[in-house]
Amino acid sequence: MSLLALALDLGGTKLDGALVTDAGAIVADSRVRRATGRDITPERLRAVLAEVVAEVIARVPEDAVVAGAGVGTAGPVDLPGGRIEPVNMPELAGFPLVDAAVEALRAAGVAAPVVVGHDGGCLALAEEWIGAAVAAAASLSIVVSTGIGGGFVVNGALLTGATGNAGHLGQTHVGESTLEEIASGPASVAWARAAGWKGTTGLELGAAAAGGDRLARAAVERSAGAVGVGLADAATLLDLDVISIGGGFSRVSDDYVDLVSTALRSAAELDFARRVTIVRSGLGDDGPLIGAAALVLRGAR
Amino acid sequence: MSLLALALDLGGTKLDGALVTDAGAIVADSRVRRATGRDITPERLRAVLAEVVAEVIARVPEDAVVAGAGVGTAGPVDLPGGRIEPVNMPELAGFPLVDAAVEALRAAGVAAPVVVGHDGGCLALAEEWIGAAVAAAASLSIVVSTGIGGGFVVNGALLTGATGNAGHLGQTHVGESTLEEIASGPASVAWARAAGWKGTTGLELGAAAAGGDRLARAAVERSAGAVGVGLADAATLLDLDVISIGGGFSRVSDDYVDLVSTALRSAAELDFARRVTIVRSGLGDDGPLIGAAALVLRGAR
Repeated sequence: MSLLALALDLGGTKLDGALVTDAGAIVADSRVRRATGRDITPERLRAVLAEVVAEVIARVPEDAVVAGAGVGTAGPVDLPGGRIEPVNMPELAGFPLVDAAVEALRAAGVAAPVVVGHDGGCLALAEEWIGAAVAAAASLSIVVSTGIGGGFVVNGALLTGATGNAGHLGQTHVGESTLEEIASGPASVAWARAAGWKGTTGLELGAAAAGGDRLARAAVERSAGAVGVGLADAATLLDLDVISIGGGFSRVSDDYVDLVSTALRSAAELDFARRVTIVRSGLGDDGPLIGAAALVLRGAR
Repeated sequence: MSLLALALDLGGTKLDGALVTDAGAIVADSRVRRATGRDITPERLRAVLAEVVAEVIARVPEDAVVAGAGVGTAGPVDLPGGRIEPVNMPELAGFPLVDAAVEALRAAGVAAPVVVGHDGGCLALAEEWIGAAVAAAASLSIVVSTGIGGGFVVNGALLTGATGNAGHLGQTHVGESTLEEIASGPASVAWARAAGWKGTTGLELGAAAAGGDRLARAAVERSAGAVGVGLADAATLLDLDVISIGGGFSRVSDDYVDLVSTALRSAAELDFARRVTIVRSGLGDDGPLIGAAALVLRGAR
């Protein structure tokens, strides 16, 4: 008999569901996806949740038991209230995600606990479980993508903070702006375009930089430099031993993580912060889904 | 029979020792103090440790038991190595504080465990134990003084980070400088003097500001504003519910904590960070000593 978690990952474009084993592997053919979107309503999310949960549960092997459901979600969250306040899905402000997930599970014939976490925290839990930050004492795992965010894992457990939102690195400040306003993919493209670059996407920016376009390269270096400064402060505040970096825009350049690392070591004032190891994500884009399972299979504090 | 901890607090000017009860009270007449100083050597510190420990142990009441010794120290520390790397006592770099404290205890006839933490972490433990952050889910307690630093307590336990240094807020950045370079007492006095103010100490600065001196008042507001911005980032990263502020320069003005609070709420980008409660330290300058006892009596993670 094997132990599984039902993992759900709710974001601004889709709701993903899958079964995950207690070794952190996504069960083959168990993935289900439905679109969400910025304007999704509570009613529509309940319907989508019911569909995804029912379809995933229908794929549970006969010899397996579902230990519970872990739900990663775009933040912020209100864990004490079991609710979410996602900035990128404003109609869902105050949505009772825990209750709605319990209901969807019950409708699919499963009575099991539900644990919710923000997606950055789930990512961090997954990286420490089976990814790039395995057995770290204090790790921060982030994505640099449309947004910038992540989570902390300390001694094997997710650091939730008072209401579940620890890890919102993108809304901390570097100079006069937030890190996300400077260094996200869209911000980097906008900066390059304002300086005269003619492309429109992060992928194009990366290709141009690799091809020798100096403006595109400057935009890449500007992003990585700001991320390094933000992470230097995080490493100084939290005394981290591992930082893992993933997300689409972190792949804009082969040396993106090296650029971040150089910037961090230049900005950090104290030796213990400069000693942090910076690595690429070990899980690609499956981190949040695997980490949602880890909420159930490994626990949070 | 009562349970006591031997508490020690090692700083750049003195080594304090005292007995602390399991309710967090300093035992009357148990305080011992010896001078240290920037140039203290390992040999001298061993001698001073032996004196302070012997004198404090001599004051243990007959019906009491010493559960262990907690040692708060100027940071950074290297907890996995049991050593310290205090920037303000450079001769002590690499000093094996745990072993030296065990030895001092043994010489005083006591075989008990020794736990070391940096003084900012001790302060935070004390504030959450019996001070201004009692029962907070995730608190940060800081001092604004000659330096700026503190510690985090999450679910009742000290957050140490990988090597014991979580809480070094003063070395995070606000704009182009570190928070300490902008907002400490000496930095604020230096800024006011560079602008033409004629006084020389933080106390004078506070008196001048209270008396209507606009430059002095501007220096106070500049310090509190920068601390508020730094704390906004900390609250965003850690999702704190309580921040406690103490230290000599935080008393420069009656409304210093209010000024910090206003600056934080203006700088924080997310509602959960703006909701943090900011309070004055509940323990005055005894926090680090009481918190050193808490290392033994309450534990760290």
